[in-house]
Amino acid sequence: MPKYDEMSKILIRNIFLNNHTTDILIEGNRISLISDNIQARDAQILDGTGMAVIPGFANMHTHAAMTMMRGSQEDARLHKWLGEIWKMETRLDDELVYWGTKLACVEMIKTGTTFFNDQYFYVDSAVKAASEMGLRGAHSYVMLDLGDKEKMLRQRELCQKAYEESMNWNPQNIFEVGVHSPYTVSQENILWACSFARDHNLKVHIHVAETSQELQDSLKEHGCTPVQYLKDLGVLSKDIVAAHCIWLDNNDIDTLGLNGINVVHNINSNLKLSSGYKFKFQELEDAGANVCLGTDGVASSNNLDMMETMKTTALVQKAWRKDPTAIPLAQLISSATFNGYKAYGLDGGRICEGALADLCLIDIDNYSFTPNINFEANLVYSAHSDCIKTVICDGKIVMKDRYIEGEAEILSQVRKLYGKIVG
Amino acid sequence: MPKYDEMSKILIRNIFLNNHTTDILIEGNRISLISDNIQARDAQILDGTGMAVIPGFANMHTHAAMTMMRGSQEDARLHKWLGEIWKMETRLDDELVYWGTKLACVEMIKTGTTFFNDQYFYVDSAVKAASEMGLRGAHSYVMLDLGDKEKMLRQRELCQKAYEESMNWNPQNIFEVGVHSPYTVSQENILWACSFARDHNLKVHIHVAETSQELQDSLKEHGCTPVQYLKDLGVLSKDIVAAHCIWLDNNDIDTLGLNGINVVHNINSNLKLSSGYKFKFQELEDAGANVCLGTDGVASSNNLDMMETMKTTALVQKAWRKDPTAIPLAQLISSATFNGYKAYGLDGGRICEGALADLCLIDIDNYSFTPNINFEANLVYSAHSDCIKTVICDGKIVMKDRYIEGEAEILSQVRKLYGKIVG
Repeated sequence: MPKYDEMSKILIRNIFLNNHTTDILIEGNRISLISDNIQARDAQILDGTGMAVIPGFANMHTHAAMTMMRGSQEDARLHKWLGEIWKMETRLDDELVYWGTKLACVEMIKTGTTFFNDQYFYVDSAVKAASEMGLRGAHSYVMLDLGDKEKMLRQRELCQKAYEESMNWNPQNIFEVGVHSPYTVSQENILWACSFARDHNLKVHIHVAETSQELQDSLKEHGCTPVQYLKDLGVLSKDIVAAHCIWLDNNDIDTLGLNGINVVHNINSNLKLSSGYKFKFQELEDAGANVCLGTDGVASSNNLDMMETMKTTALVQKAWRKDPTAIPLAQLISSATFNGYKAYGLDGGRICEGALADLCLIDIDNYSFTPNINFEANLVYSAHSDCIKTVICDGKIVMKDRYIEGEAEILSQVRKLYGKIVG
Repeated sequence: MPKYDEMSKILIRNIFLNNHTTDILIEGNRISLISDNIQARDAQILDGTGMAVIPGFANMHTHAAMTMMRGSQEDARLHKWLGEIWKMETRLDDELVYWGTKLACVEMIKTGTTFFNDQYFYVDSAVKAASEMGLRGAHSYVMLDLGDKEKMLRQRELCQKAYEESMNWNPQNIFEVGVHSPYTVSQENILWACSFARDHNLKVHIHVAETSQELQDSLKEHGCTPVQYLKDLGVLSKDIVAAHCIWLDNNDIDTLGLNGINVVHNINSNLKLSSGYKFKFQELEDAGANVCLGTDGVASSNNLDMMETMKTTALVQKAWRKDPTAIPLAQLISSATFNGYKAYGLDGGRICEGALADLCLIDIDNYSFTPNINFEANLVYSAHSDCIKTVICDGKIVMKDRYIEGEAEILSQVRKLYGKIVG
């Protein structure tokens, strides 16, 4: 049995789960028992009356510290947008990433995310922020060299440095290798990064086939699609977490499926930047890929809300497929919870005995859940994230009754600092 | 000067408006003064510190009492969905409509709607509910005869009865004529209804060109589009409020524009039921139509949230047009506020002296508005409706610090009653 804070115990009483009211016992960082009338005299009690329990969300693609740029680039064309973002990113430093990530954690906790997959700069500061806030995360330094030889070597050093620093991270934070994309990272560095990842048993987090432009450029430069290019490099495996994958042909879908790729769909970002929206959710799952959901960074999607992401994902799938039965509720909710944890080999994102205690208590005594004929439908299509009252991550309470320790200071620091990057 | 509750006065102090902190004085049901440091000794004071003021939203197409059916029809094909809805609607009565509308009002107030356009049954009970809750509304009994002669006459009687009852409504509630659609109401009754509306200076609320099936059927039966059919009947004018209008050709757009039609876009309903999503927002406005937004009933869109509706509208417009500059923020916000009021000849949906005092105080001291570089972008793309703290409608406070009088009883009554219609 694991030693964990001398086995702290939390007992959630009278909570709604699977159309039934029950108790849940958390011991250490795992759910140890789900049963009616659990006795646990030494446990901290949470009263679940009028509430339901759901797994914490897994936000499988974001750039957390971009909260610093919220609302700075609106109604803008992609090239102008990207140019401004890259300009702002040159001004980043440890302090900005630390407080930007803190704000992202506040937002993710308030909206029920317990596990997030981050790709950004000054990773050690991001992890310091995430650790202090109590969230679970996978983190990568983003490699981006645009074929520049000097940058290529520097990027490898920075990746290695981040890996070394990760030895000091708490176990809730996983190091992974970050490759920006097949079109912004040289072939040599993609190969180096994926080989480094294999040697150290790490995941690789990469943007793939996000825009039509990327597809066209790849066809021109490599004579094949971005997915085919990565396949030909021999780097595709179940250790790849590929964000976007909007512009796929049938071969690409088969390739991603056969290799068990974790594909992250970021609907709000794709819609807002007009990148494309006909994501092949069902086809990818049928082929064998693990489809997860993400928000992307706040600079593109403006918030980090996975409940909103679930709803928009399903609505848009139903619309462009002209099929209102597309992506039923259970499949949708799995993609926002369980599938993300599965991508990293973690038993979380579900409420059952033995699973990681990453979960949310949500208020169902309100208009969004009245009547409560179909709880999952109310959760996805009727409610918003303000129904989330208490969040437990890794067996510890990170928000109680919407109170997060230190929140006011975080807001105040971001307001003081954002002017340093936003011109 | 109007006599109004002996000219009740509300003074909002230190509120954020147009990137500036100011005071707002409400006298009777209108905004009478916007200025710094207003003195008004006899006014009720609302402290606006850390808050911004926005106009109340105008939800220009809904069937309020459908809250009773929330979540009862999920992931279902349109025909099955409609069949089930119609079956449930045969079981409606005054009590169910009254409590269903009450719940809808709770939800609309909590999400910042101050004016709603309702089309349903047992209208007098719906208006009783809306009046008690303090909301502004336009209400119609929905005529639907499917060509049945007996029904046709009965529908006229019910419309006339509702009109007579409306003489006793409070002035916040406007009576209008409800015509379900060109395909469910006989030509005779469409003509009767529009003539009745003209005679009594009333608006007509109608569903038009919602689905591809409706368009195909119209082409087959009438040899023209639904819009052309209504034009040929001579019923199009600025007094028409036409919901959906998804399936239009260029002629239809010109026709709707030239006649100054009020067109209501209901993106969430259209997406969820796979009715179509390529709404010609910009083209309709350019042609001269007044584009408004709505949620449709909860049975199709699952909630009545106009903030969510604004965001989804803009995201989907940007996506299918492949243009991230589409529907800029000011245009979008107008469609959700000012345009709805304009459709009914009301000076509301904007914050200026002389306008109706229908407005919301929203909390901006939170993560969604941090940093607050672009307030409108934060409102639409980052925040959710839980930022809405206090709502004033017609100069009266209908929600303060998210407290609505009688809310618990309304939830409890709906939970008790919904079983009577949901099988």
